[in-house]
Amino acid sequence: MAQKRAYLDYNASAPLLAVARDAVVDALAQTGNPSSVHWEGRAAKAILERARRDVAALVNAKPDHVFFTSGATEAASTLLTPHYVMGRASVRLSRLYVSASEHPCVLAGGQFAAGQIETVPVDRNGLLDLERLRVLLAAHDKGEGLPLVAVQAANNETGVLQPIDEIGRLVKAFGGFFVVDAVQAAGRIPLDIATACADYLILSSHKIGGPKGVGAIVAVSDLVMPRALVRGGGQEKGHRAGTEALPVIAGFGAAARVAREQLLAGGWGLANRQRIEDGIRAIAADAVIYGDAVERLANTTFFSLADMKAETVQIAFDLAGIALSAGSACSSGKVGPSHVLAAMGFGDGTGGLRVSTTPDTTQEEIALFLDALTKIVARRDRTKPVSADAA
Amino acid sequence: MAQKRAYLDYNASAPLLAVARDAVVDALAQTGNPSSVHWEGRAAKAILERARRDVAALVNAKPDHVFFTSGATEAASTLLTPHYVMGRASVRLSRLYVSASEHPCVLAGGQFAAGQIETVPVDRNGLLDLERLRVLLAAHDKGEGLPLVAVQAANNETGVLQPIDEIGRLVKAFGGFFVVDAVQAAGRIPLDIATACADYLILSSHKIGGPKGVGAIVAVSDLVMPRALVRGGGQEKGHRAGTEALPVIAGFGAAARVAREQLLAGGWGLANRQRIEDGIRAIAADAVIYGDAVERLANTTFFSLADMKAETVQIAFDLAGIALSAGSACSSGKVGPSHVLAAMGFGDGTGGLRVSTTPDTTQEEIALFLDALTKIVARRDRTKPVSADAA
Repeated sequence: MAQKRAYLDYNASAPLLAVARDAVVDALAQTGNPSSVHWEGRAAKAILERARRDVAALVNAKPDHVFFTSGATEAASTLLTPHYVMGRASVRLSRLYVSASEHPCVLAGGQFAAGQIETVPVDRNGLLDLERLRVLLAAHDKGEGLPLVAVQAANNETGVLQPIDEIGRLVKAFGGFFVVDAVQAAGRIPLDIATACADYLILSSHKIGGPKGVGAIVAVSDLVMPRALVRGGGQEKGHRAGTEALPVIAGFGAAARVAREQLLAGGWGLANRQRIEDGIRAIAADAVIYGDAVERLANTTFFSLADMKAETVQIAFDLAGIALSAGSACSSGKVGPSHVLAAMGFGDGTGGLRVSTTPDTTQEEIALFLDALTKIVARRDRTKPVSADAA
Repeated sequence: MAQKRAYLDYNASAPLLAVARDAVVDALAQTGNPSSVHWEGRAAKAILERARRDVAALVNAKPDHVFFTSGATEAASTLLTPHYVMGRASVRLSRLYVSASEHPCVLAGGQFAAGQIETVPVDRNGLLDLERLRVLLAAHDKGEGLPLVAVQAANNETGVLQPIDEIGRLVKAFGGFFVVDAVQAAGRIPLDIATACADYLILSSHKIGGPKGVGAIVAVSDLVMPRALVRGGGQEKGHRAGTEALPVIAGFGAAARVAREQLLAGGWGLANRQRIEDGIRAIAADAVIYGDAVERLANTTFFSLADMKAETVQIAFDLAGIALSAGSACSSGKVGPSHVLAAMGFGDGTGGLRVSTTPDTTQEEIALFLDALTKIVARRDRTKPVSADAA
């Protein structure tokens, strides 16, 4: 690949941190099964438990309440179920309330039947309609079971931050359980499972610079837990069976450690986002930057250009050496209209372009992006009013 | 660790093959999400598809019919469900038939209710009671749904091989679906999904020298598939959502390639097992080697010593530098009586010791094991008739 490229699709998958890579490679050398009682097994177990402490620390949870999964999607599929257990007793959750801009794996509702899922609208800025949630929870029939609410801390496409603490207090006031999809928020904004009033957080390794193939359910306590989705042996205290994915868990732990250190050191600055958005506005006065009126992640810009389909522009960027997304990268090769934009009231099918960066994104990469954008917009303006598909 | 150690617990987790390690490390450098359409995404996707071809080739399946999971346990939890789909139509499987010596993740029955699971006995050699299965299938009420039969090709504790082809033909004669747990058999004996009459195979990477944290469902066709357990995006053609665990999938593919080459080159010889078992019999004439009257894996010996609890002996071996198992390593640190031995009619709670090797196991390692065994048996004989717990 002779072409100079800029990877600006951090929210789809983050480049692996060097320390995470080293942790994976070290753990690959561990032959033992963490469930084996011999020396090799105990050595593997020690790596597992260190990673558990590191992931717990990132969200101020207890290590005992971290349960590793194969990723955030499995964590969501596990948590979004009517069937919870408290020891041997079963706890029934009768309805699931999700925001309309959730990730597909939460919108899918896990093991809830379609009729048990209530979608709560978001406003034009992507913020959850709290009043509507309040009305729904007030009308919830607890005789059938408790309410389960699942909301993402930060949206994967727009970066918009939900007022998780406020939502959490509301859910608690109505005696519900609260799942926070913290996949895109973790490591980028401070998260504390207790102050968020969250019962469970969903985390993903590869969005914070760890390897793909691992995530976690972090619980505020393990008193009430979802019935295990993956069943068999007694790993993860019976909440998730299967030999632990030691190498990627070790990498996840290392990435969590770095993420926490970065947050303690002051977190991610807004300078890159500002430069990107100032550039977009200067190049295309008609550009819309979604959610720009509210709090967003420092690394995410979701925008669209008038008269240009996002898929087409995304391909043009790719040819110019810029990796970014039209919507999210959650299903194989599929590029469709963004349900997030539709939920926010931008349902014309134009779609959005997501630029997502890391603190290590360079000025050169941003310049490459803005240069490509300049050419794409110039081409559009030359060919107007021909449809964007011909661009 | 100054002590010289011998790792003889290959069936718990195999040492990572060098080529698998290299494949993991190479894939770690791929930033892209395989679902992203940009250059980085397509590069990741190419790695994914190469691994799919390699895993398919190991069991003579079509690459399109390989679905990666986070491991064999997730594959079993997915396959063992009453809810199958054929396109948009649902296919109902009403009862699950498993052998009594299955791995805990199959015995647990996945999503079947306890009352829907029928356990088929095994004989003293560990072989499935085919006649009993025939009677059960003949009595199966197809009006309620089709029968699902799940049997392992090779037992993880004893290495005993089930007559899979014969069982498969029986299941097909009764119009059932057949899941073969090929976790311990894959790479050690030739497996062909078609000749086994299997509808689905379960594979695990870390038992064939690949990394932990990945496995696969291999289907003979994708016409009828289990309803997805992990739901969200459209990855793996909708049969398993979640960003693909690229690094470990790449390592799994590389291990499958090596395993296939080894099988093509003639497979695993019986010399090591013979040396181990001749040694055991020479040292302890009272030793019982389970399943020794029938076909077993070339790498597995499961034995017990009179008057000695397996857990105690396992610890003595560990202290002497030998890693082996008392039963299987499927739940964290738990060492209990072997349900496999109980199913075979050896239910006195003595338990068995599993020695499992690789073709690379050295004569020096076997000598270390036999030397430790000699000392353990000598200590027992000195202290008889004191109970083994005091050993």
